Amino acid sequence: MLELYHNAASTCSQKVRLVLAEKGLDFESHPIDLIAGGQHDPAYVKLNPNHVVPTLIHDGRVLLESTLIIRYLDEEFPEPPLRPADPFGRYRDELWAHRIDTEVHAAAPILTFAVGARNVLLQQPEEVREANLAAIPDARLRAERRSVLDHGVQAPEFAGAMQIFIDALDAMETDLTARPWLDGASPGLADASMLPYVLRLDHLAMSPLLDPGRRPRVADWYRRWQERDTYTTAVTNWLPAIVGEIMRKNGEAVWPEVEALIAATSRAD
Amino acid sequence: MLELYHNAASTCSQKVRLVLAEKGLDFESHPIDLIAGGQHDPAYVKLNPNHVVPTLIHDGRVLLESTLIIRYLDEEFPEPPLRPADPFGRYRDELWAHRIDTEVHAAAPILTFAVGARNVLLQQPEEVREANLAAIPDARLRAERRSVLDHGVQAPEFAGAMQIFIDALDAMETDLTARPWLDGASPGLADASMLPYVLRLDHLAMSPLLDPGRRPRVADWYRRWQERDTYTTAVTNWLPAIVGEIMRKNGEAVWPEVEALIAATSRAD
Repeated sequence: MLELYHNAASTCSQKVRLVLAEKGLDFESHPIDLIAGGQHDPAYVKLNPNHVVPTLIHDGRVLLESTLIIRYLDEEFPEPPLRPADPFGRYRDELWAHRIDTEVHAAAPILTFAVGARNVLLQQPEEVREANLAAIPDARLRAERRSVLDHGVQAPEFAGAMQIFIDALDAMETDLTARPWLDGASPGLADASMLPYVLRLDHLAMSPLLDPGRRPRVADWYRRWQERDTYTTAVTNWLPAIVGEIMRKNGEAVWPEVEALIAATSRAD
Repeated sequence: MLELYHNAASTCSQKVRLVLAEKGLDFESHPIDLIAGGQHDPAYVKLNPNHVVPTLIHDGRVLLESTLIIRYLDEEFPEPPLRPADPFGRYRDELWAHRIDTEVHAAAPILTFAVGARNVLLQQPEEVREANLAAIPDARLRAERRSVLDHGVQAPEFAGAMQIFIDALDAMETDLTARPWLDGASPGLADASMLPYVLRLDHLAMSPLLDPGRRPRVADWYRRWQERDTYTTAVTNWLPAIVGEIMRKNGEAVWPEVEALIAATSRAD
C-alpha cells in the first residue's frame, strides 16, 4: 500500500502526485497544512526529520526526498517507464533532477514567499508566524525565510533565485528543440519534476516568462501538460482555486518590480 | 573510449577514479591543475561550463557531475554492479548521493580552503589569487571562498560545514551497523562517493573524528577501503605525498581551534 503525506500546493508534492498519476497508482492521502505548520508537528517529524513534504510510505517503508521517491516509484512500478532506457538518456534525465535538487528547489521558496505567500503570512498573528519561523531546523534557511518575508522581492536573495529559474527555463527551451518532452517522446520524471516550478511561475503571475513569443517550446510543453488527464488528477483536483488566485494577485502587484530586477541582473531576458 | 579531465586531489575526481578502478576500466587522463586555475581555461570551460572537475568523455559524449558520471558508468558498464539490485536498496544508495550533492559537496571546499589550501593560496602572488577568485562564476561561492581565505576556521561558514561532515559521519556509523559497506556486502557507489570526504578529513588532520573509539564502524570501513587495490590505483597512485603532507601540517596547526568550534556547536561530538 502507498501512503502519501503531502500538500496540495507544494511543488515537491505535485511532482510525486504527477508520477503516481502517470503510473495509475492509488494512494492513501495525508494532507499536511504548511501554512499552519503541520510539517513541524512532532508526529510528522518522526517520519520526516527534515520538516518537509512529501513523505511516501510503501508497505511500511518510509521514503524521503521527492526526487528519490519518483525514481523509486519508477523502479518499483515499471509500467509505463518514465525514464529513457539507454544510459545516456538516463544521464540526461538525472541532469534535470540534479539541477532541481541543487538549484531550483532552494530558489522556489524564495520566489513563493517573496511574492505569493508573503501577504498571507504577514496577516498571521505574529506569534504563529514567529513560531513557524523558529521551527525551521536549518539556520541559513531560517534567516533566508525571514529576509524574504521582511523585504519581499527586494530581499538580497530574490534576484539570484529568479536567475536560477530563468536559466532553467532557457535550458528547457534548448532541450525541447531535440524532443517533445524532456525525457523523450512522452513525459517522464524530468517533465514531472519541472512542471510544478513552471506552474509556480504562472501562479505567481510571472507568465510573461512563459510567453510563446519568448520561449515557444516551453509554452507548448506547458500547454501539453495542462491537457493531460494526469495533470487534472495530480494538480487541478487537489489545488483549491483560491490558492492560485491569492498567489496571482500578489504576483501581479509586484510584477513590474520583478521585471525591473530581471532586466538589471539577467543574462538571458 | 573513456577520457577523464580530473585532478589528483579533488574529491569528485577521486570518486570517479574509484568507480573506474572498481569496474576495471582504463581511461585517457587529462589532469587539470586547480591551484593554477586550469578549471577556468576557456578550452576546458567549453567542455565544463561549471568550471569544475571532473568531466568524462565517453565515445565523444560529454558527461558532467561526478554523481551522475558514476551512475552512468554503472549502467553502461554493469559488471560488477555497484548498486543494490532492489529498488529500496537503490533508494538508500541515492539518499547518500543526495546528501552529498545537496550538503557535503558544498561543505568540503569550505573545510579544504579554510584549513588545508589556505596557506598555499595566501603565498601565491596576489594577482594570481585574485584572478582565480574572480573567475569563480557563482557569486555566492566566490564570496564564500574569499571569506574562508580571509578568516580560515573562524570564517562564519566554517562551523556549519564542519557540522555537515559530522552529521554525515554519524549517519555512516548508523548505516554501517546494518551492513559492512554503505551499499551492502561490497563497496558501491555510495562507498566510493563518501571515501574522498573521509580521506579529506584525514588529510586535514581531523583524524580524531575517525577514531575507532569514537566511530568504530567508520574507522573500520576506512581501513578496509585503504586495503583495497582499487584504492591504490585510484587514490594513492595519483596523489603526490606532498599534497597530503601540506594539508595535514596546516590541519594540525588549527586542530585545537577546530575542536573548540566543534565542542561549541556540535549536536553529536
